[in-house]
Amino acid sequence: MSGSLSIAGLGPGSETMITPDVQQAIDEATDIVGYIPYVRRIVPRAGLTLHESDNRVEIDRANHALDMAQSGRRVVVVSSGDPGVFAMASAVFEALEAGHDARRTIDIRVLPGITAMLAAAAAAGAPLGHDFCAINLSDNLKPWHLIEKRLRLAAEADFAMAFYNPRSKSRPEGFARTLTILREACEPTRLITFAHAVSTPDQALTTVKLADATPDMADMRTVVLVGSSQTRIIERAGAPIVYTPRSVAVE
Amino acid sequence: MSGSLSIAGLGPGSETMITPDVQQAIDEATDIVGYIPYVRRIVPRAGLTLHESDNRVEIDRANHALDMAQSGRRVVVVSSGDPGVFAMASAVFEALEAGHDARRTIDIRVLPGITAMLAAAAAAGAPLGHDFCAINLSDNLKPWHLIEKRLRLAAEADFAMAFYNPRSKSRPEGFARTLTILREACEPTRLITFAHAVSTPDQALTTVKLADATPDMADMRTVVLVGSSQTRIIERAGAPIVYTPRSVAVE
Repeated sequence: MSGSLSIAGLGPGSETMITPDVQQAIDEATDIVGYIPYVRRIVPRAGLTLHESDNRVEIDRANHALDMAQSGRRVVVVSSGDPGVFAMASAVFEALEAGHDARRTIDIRVLPGITAMLAAAAAAGAPLGHDFCAINLSDNLKPWHLIEKRLRLAAEADFAMAFYNPRSKSRPEGFARTLTILREACEPTRLITFAHAVSTPDQALTTVKLADATPDMADMRTVVLVGSSQTRIIERAGAPIVYTPRSVAVE
Repeated sequence: MSGSLSIAGLGPGSETMITPDVQQAIDEATDIVGYIPYVRRIVPRAGLTLHESDNRVEIDRANHALDMAQSGRRVVVVSSGDPGVFAMASAVFEALEAGHDARRTIDIRVLPGITAMLAAAAAAGAPLGHDFCAINLSDNLKPWHLIEKRLRLAAEADFAMAFYNPRSKSRPEGFARTLTILREACEPTRLITFAHAVSTPDQALTTVKLADATPDMADMRTVVLVGSSQTRIIERAGAPIVYTPRSVAVE
């Protein structure tokens, strides 16, 4: 049997956001590998082995998946959201590059999914409707000064911004520092949306002005969207709509 | 009958990347509205009216969709990719905000899709695996100097970058200027991937060093991905893998 490795995105939480490509890979898999809460989204069946692992063991997990694929298994590594956005695809390729050359013949595919920031943006309206950036606020894997530099330059470029991992258990002060930098760089009326558990039954969206944002508005299940200077809010009876127009006037 | 308006993303081209949420909205629609090539992706059926319109009439199209939803139709506005990324969601909200207040009671939802840059990144490996930005290079809707400013700041921030609309018929020189700016701001070995018609039978990916990139490598169906300074290439028998590691070393 010829083995394969698919690195697949399960989307932000709702089963109705999983693409047919990803569903087919899961249906044909012999082994599913991933972080515990993502593997638990897979329906068990005969012939399918589920391999759960804890957070922060991404390279071990990647090596395990590569070894099984090389031995002839049809392996799917599952990520939340899109596997190419702050998720498992880069970890698998780091392990592939560091490992022995024979692994490079493995049939590897990345299957995209709906990443959290785009599901959050859709739930809010269209705050990322113009040029934007995505920044992982966790400083586990990069120095804080680089995060700070990127935040300041992103504000100067007037990008809308999406923040992943805004608030970790181990470093809760990071998001407070982020808000301080944004307040130095942006006007106090800048719109900021906190999108908690998007597309799940726990989904909750809150949009406030930057001056009114507080660190506790973000937790580990929140994606934060910061508008550009052009981002607008449409008030109405239900939830407001937050969007960034397509055009910027010539000054 | 109570009308509704869904703004739905069809993904980059393959029918196997359309989410079940989007498929359900299409299956329940009375009217599909959109740019000609996107509407032609919808299978005709009894009870469904297809409304095709030309490019660059986004606000007219949005007003038509809002009017029909207000009159009780179940309308789906279709976009390629994700409707919230350089697509129809912002146009609909611009029309909604400019129109009369009664429209604000319309049931409006945005249904996310796989946006072109993430499908392109998956096909290439994981070049957007760390902090990145998305820039629309068309200067139809914003001044060129703003595009140039964003390119320079994005390079300084060491973001990976994704470019939409790199080369328009009316302004073919824009992408040559983009390459000139990148060459001033980035090292000549920086990796750049041209992803043409991703997920369709015409898909073609080319990755070169920035020094070897030429304007004709991009056309109107191309998404361009520029790596950060950390982006790496894994050579192997088939297509190479381009990826950005998850971590940046503390200097």
